[in-house]
Amino acid sequence: MKKIEALIRTSKFDEIHKCLSGLGVKFLTFYEVKGMGLQHAKMQHYRGVAYEPTFIPRTKLEIVVQDDLEDKVVACILNEGRTGEVGDGKIFVYDVEKAFRIRNDETGESAL
Amino acid sequence: MKKIEALIRTSKFDEIHKCLSGLGVKFLTFYEVKGMGLQHAKMQHYRGVAYEPTFIPRTKLEIVVQDDLEDKVVACILNEGRTGEVGDGKIFVYDVEKAFRIRNDETGESAL
Amino acid sequence: MKKIEALIRTSKFDEIHKCLSGLGVKFLTFYEVKGMGLQHAKMQHYRGVAYEPTFIPRTKLEIVVQDDLEDKVVACILNEGRTGEVGDGKIFVYDVEKAFRIRNDETGESAL
Ligand SMILES: Nc1ncnc2c1ncn2[C@@H]1O[C@H](COP(=O)(O)OP(=O)(O)OP(=O)(O)O)[C@@H](O)[C@H]1O
Ligand SMILES: Nc1ncnc2c1ncn2[C@@H]1O[C@H](COP(=O)(O)OP(=O)(O)OP(=O)(O)O)[C@@H](O)[C@H]1O
Ligand SMILES: Nc1ncnc2c1ncn2[C@@H]1O[C@H](COP(=O)(O)OP(=O)(O)OP(=O)(O)O)[C@@H](O)[C@H]1O
Ligand SMILES: [Mg+2]
Ligand SMILES: [Mg+2]
Ligand SMILES: [Mg+2]
Repeated sequence: MKKIEALIRTSKFDEIHKCLSGLGVKFLTFYEVKGMGLQHAKMQHYRGVAYEPTFIPRTKLEIVVQDDLEDKVVACILNEGRTGEVGDGKIFVYDVEKAFRIRNDETGESAL
Repeated sequence: MKKIEALIRTSKFDEIHKCLSGLGVKFLTFYEVKGMGLQHAKMQHYRGVAYEPTFIPRTKLEIVVQDDLEDKVVACILNEGRTGEVGDGKIFVYDVEKAFRIRNDETGESAL
Repeated sequence: MKKIEALIRTSKFDEIHKCLSGLGVKFLTFYEVKGMGLQHAKMQHYRGVAYEPTFIPRTKLEIVVQDDLEDKVVACILNEGRTGEVGDGKIFVYDVEKAFRIRNDETGESAL
């Protein structure tokens, strides 16, 4: 099993979700995070006024799937999450050792 | 070392925490996330009125423990987190390569 | 590639970020979490009044880096995040199998 974690543009959430639904991926978890780059270190200027750089809000998705869905889930996020402008985000993939459904005794892929 | 990540019913947090305390597990991290399923793709109706489906708020727990506590921590979450109704949540287990206590030079299991 | 996850004092964020910038680490993700210990199980008292123990807000950082930056990123967090008082936080390191930049077709270390 794999965990697919993606930092996406919040505006792309619905399209990514529809693509995942089309794969039969029924569940996902998401929450708001902040992201930043090197620009934080320096003060920024706009029309001559200095201001503290702000952090960019991002939506983070977490989806645990059986191995053979990994490539398809990644393809949904790449295809639906891309604008081609900087800031489209990242996808990271991790190994998951075990999964449990709390409601009953299902474990492993049948718990997903 | 293992990371045990659980999406639980927020209402079950206290009972799970008491069980963990009984194991000697002193620390955990938690935060609010949102979860959703396929129902998001379609509009929902209630008494004839269409409404946008909402996301279900969940509490996510993260607990890093030495290997020999993994099964006991999972058992606490399964036993105390279960109502038997759909929506009880999931548990995922990951390998942790290294741990550090920032206050001093402890690493590995003694840093947990 | 490695994921370095740190629960830090929020007050140490800027110093840690500056140290990371000095390493050339351009991106990180962060969000607010809550942490707690065993004290949650018991009611607490202050000037004779019982009150529910509260959870301590923490900042959680997540940084995915190429392997040869792992030790340097950990050193930044240990050096800049330490006060020497209890509660300085923890660092956990995980293996990352794959990375993708959503904007284009970069994968692996060049996607970081
Ligand atoms: N290596 C990383 N580790 C942790 N978080 C990251 C990493 N890279 C990016 N992020 C997160 O992803 C968000 C989006 O990053 P972004 O798409 O701007 O990356 P980028 O490398 O600048 O790519 P691009 O050149 O397409 O903008 C960041 O705000 C941050 O939250
Ligand atoms: N495979 C998964 N990947 C990521 N998050 C998941 C996954 N499965 C469940 N979740 C998260 O767990 C929460 C609770 O899921 P839930 O208990 O309803 O799962 P379920 O598979 O429908 O089980 P049940 O049939 O018992 O309801 C979801 O809202 C979502 O946040
Ligand atoms: N093993 C763990 N698993 C998950 N989260 C943890 C773990 N240990 C600590 N944390 C998180 O890190 C935060 C800070 O922990 P803290 O620095 O107080 O750890 P500690 O073990 O008490 O170290 P110290 O003795 O230096 O205080 C906690 O509030 C919690 O969110
Ligand atoms: Mg960028
Ligand atoms: Mg369900
Ligand atoms: Mg402490």
